[in-house]
Amino acid sequence: MTKKIKGYAAIGADKPLEFYEFERRELRPHDIEFDILYCGVCHSDVHQARNEWGISVYPMVPGHELVGHVTRIGKEVSKFKVDDMAGVGCMVDSCRKCAACLAGLEQYCEHDMLQTYNAVDPIDGMKIQGGYSQTEVVDENYALHIPKSIDPAKAAPLLCAGITTYSPLRHWKVGSGHKVGVVGIGGLGHMAVQYAKSFGAEVYMITTTSGKASDAAELGADGAIIATDMAAMEAQAKSFDFLLSTIPQSHDLQLYLNLLKQGGTLIIVGALTQIEPGINGMNMAARRLSIGTSLIGGIKETQEMLDYSAKNNIAPAIELIKIEDINKAFDRMVNKDVRYRFVIDLKASFK
Amino acid sequence: MTKKIKGYAAIGADKPLEFYEFERRELRPHDIEFDILYCGVCHSDVHQARNEWGISVYPMVPGHELVGHVTRIGKEVSKFKVDDMAGVGCMVDSCRKCAACLAGLEQYCEHDMLQTYNAVDPIDGMKIQGGYSQTEVVDENYALHIPKSIDPAKAAPLLCAGITTYSPLRHWKVGSGHKVGVVGIGGLGHMAVQYAKSFGAEVYMITTTSGKASDAAELGADGAIIATDMAAMEAQAKSFDFLLSTIPQSHDLQLYLNLLKQGGTLIIVGALTQIEPGINGMNMAARRLSIGTSLIGGIKETQEMLDYSAKNNIAPAIELIKIEDINKAFDRMVNKDVRYRFVIDLKASFK
Repeated sequence: MTKKIKGYAAIGADKPLEFYEFERRELRPHDIEFDILYCGVCHSDVHQARNEWGISVYPMVPGHELVGHVTRIGKEVSKFKVDDMAGVGCMVDSCRKCAACLAGLEQYCEHDMLQTYNAVDPIDGMKIQGGYSQTEVVDENYALHIPKSIDPAKAAPLLCAGITTYSPLRHWKVGSGHKVGVVGIGGLGHMAVQYAKSFGAEVYMITTTSGKASDAAELGADGAIIATDMAAMEAQAKSFDFLLSTIPQSHDLQLYLNLLKQGGTLIIVGALTQIEPGINGMNMAARRLSIGTSLIGGIKETQEMLDYSAKNNIAPAIELIKIEDINKAFDRMVNKDVRYRFVIDLKASFK
Repeated sequence: MTKKIKGYAAIGADKPLEFYEFERRELRPHDIEFDILYCGVCHSDVHQARNEWGISVYPMVPGHELVGHVTRIGKEVSKFKVDDMAGVGCMVDSCRKCAACLAGLEQYCEHDMLQTYNAVDPIDGMKIQGGYSQTEVVDENYALHIPKSIDPAKAAPLLCAGITTYSPLRHWKVGSGHKVGVVGIGGLGHMAVQYAKSFGAEVYMITTTSGKASDAAELGADGAIIATDMAAMEAQAKSFDFLLSTIPQSHDLQLYLNLLKQGGTLIIVGALTQIEPGINGMNMAARRLSIGTSLIGGIKETQEMLDYSAKNNIAPAIELIKIEDINKAFDRMVNKDVRYRFVIDLKASFK
C-alpha cells in the first residue's frame, strides 16, 4: 500500500514552492524506508524547480541530499536494519548491467541513472519525488550508510556537494605538490577546499564574493583570490595545476584557464549547461591545457567519501531552516547569501 | 657576414606569394647551415600567409617542415657535421631555462618558443624567415637528425604534421584496447592514423570528404566514417575512447563529443583559434568526458618520432611541387584537394 506524506513542491517554473501531499510506494523486497531528518538545499534544486534546464515536470518535490532513520525494511534487505542512519544522494537506481554500472560508476549509467526527483519510476510509473518531504523509500543498493560520528544534519550536504567535489579530486589524483584553485565558493566549493587540502594540495579559493575571502583560513585554504580583481588574477596567472569550477551556470572559462600552468586541468562540475563563449584552441594548446568534467560519484565512492569525511572531520558549514523558509532560501542562495549550505530540518517542519 | 638567398614570401594577407630575396644570418658558434632540399606545406602556412590568426608581419617566408644537407657548422657545433641530413620543425629556439624547456617541452616555453618564421631574432633583431627558401641557419640544439632510411622529401612533413599527432597520442598513452577516431584526414590526420595504428589502437578515419574513405585501408585504418552522414555518426555514438581532431579551424565539438564513450577524451591539435559554439557542461559531465589540447612536440620527442617513423616505415603520402606552384597548392589544400601533403622541391625550384 502506498503511503501519503507531506512535502513541499514546485508547481511551476515561476511559482514559489508550496505545501504538497503525495504518495510514496509500498516497500519492494529490497527497499528501505526512512524518516527524513535533514535534506540539503542544492543549487540544482533551484535550476530544476525553476525549469532552468528545461526538463522539469510539475508538481516536483526537490531534494537530493537526504538523511534519516530507517523505519522499515523490505523482506530481502540485507544492507540496512531498522534504526540505521541512511542517506540518499542524486540517484535512486540505474540499469546495473552496463559497463559503467558494473564499474561502480552508476552516475554514468549508459541507460541513464534514475534521479532522486523529477523522475518516473520505470516499474510502477509513479512520479519519484525528492527529500523536501517526510519519508523516503529507496532500494537499499542506492542508499548510503551515514557514519555515526557525523552530525546527520551535516551529513546531508555530503551526498551531493561532498561527492561532486570529492570524486573529481580523486579521479584526477589531486594531492601533494599540486596548487589547486576552487572556483566558486558555495555549497560545493567550500567542500572542495576541505577535500583538496586534506589530500595534501596547496589550495586557493577563487570567488567573486569578496566577503567570503575571510573564511579562507577557517575552511583550511591557503588563501583567497577575488576573481573580479584583475591585478590579483594576473599575479596568479599560469601558476595552478588544477582548477575545480563549481560555478553553477555558464561562465567565461578563459578567465580561469589563464590561471593554469603548463599541463594544467580545469575541471567543471557546476555548469551543467551550454557554456559560452567557446574555448580557444591556441590559448589552451600553448600550455597543453585540458578541460575535464565530472558528475557526482558512484555509490561505492559516495560511501568512501562519507567514511573519509567522518574519519577526517570534514563537514559542511550549514544553516538550518524550516521547510516554510525554502523560497527565501532559494533566493538567498541565488544571491550567494549562504555560508555555505542550507539544510532543511524536516522534523521541525512537519509536526 | 649575412648571406642573400632566394625564397617565396607572402607580402600581404590578400596577395599571392611571390619571389623574394632576403638575408640569412652569419653562423654563430652553435649554428648549422643547411641547403634546404624539401619543405612541407602546412595548413598553418596558409593561416599565417593570409593573416588568419591576426599576427602576421610581412614580407613573410613561410615553411616549418625543412629538410636538407648540412653545408657549414659553427665552431662549437658538436651535434652535426657537414653532409649530415638535418631538419627543422616549428621552432628554432626557446628560453632553455624555464620548467617546460628543462623538461624537454620547449614548445610550451614559458617565454614562448621562437617560431621558425614570422618571428624576430632576439639577438640581432633580424626577421626570421621560413623554409620556402634555399638555405636555413639554425642553432644545432633546435635541429633534428633525419634518419638515413627515410626519403628526405617524406621526412619534411614529419617535422610538423608528424610530431603534432605523435606527441598527443603518446601523452595520452593511446594504444592497445583503445578505439580511436582521427577527425579530419589531411596532412596531420593521415599521420595520426598511422601512428595510432602503430601504437596498437583500433583506428577510424572521420572525414567530411567521402572520397578519402577509400584510402582507409592503405593508411592502415580499420574503417572510415563520413562525418556528414548522420546515420553513420549515430551508429558510432558513445563508442570511442579517444578522438584526435586535426580540423584546422573552428568546428562543432559536440558533433564529435557524441562519439566518445564514458571517460573519453577529445584532443584538439588543429583548431588554434576561438572554437564556437561553446561546450556543454551537462553533455560532457554525463560521461565524464575531457577535452585535451596539444601543440607540436619538444626537440627530444621530435627526434624520437623521427627515429620511430624510420624504424616502423611510417611516412606521409606526398605530392611534390615546385615553389612557383605554391599559390595553387595553397588553394588546393584549403579545398581539401591534396593526398595528403604538398612538399616543395627547393632544389628543382631555384636553379
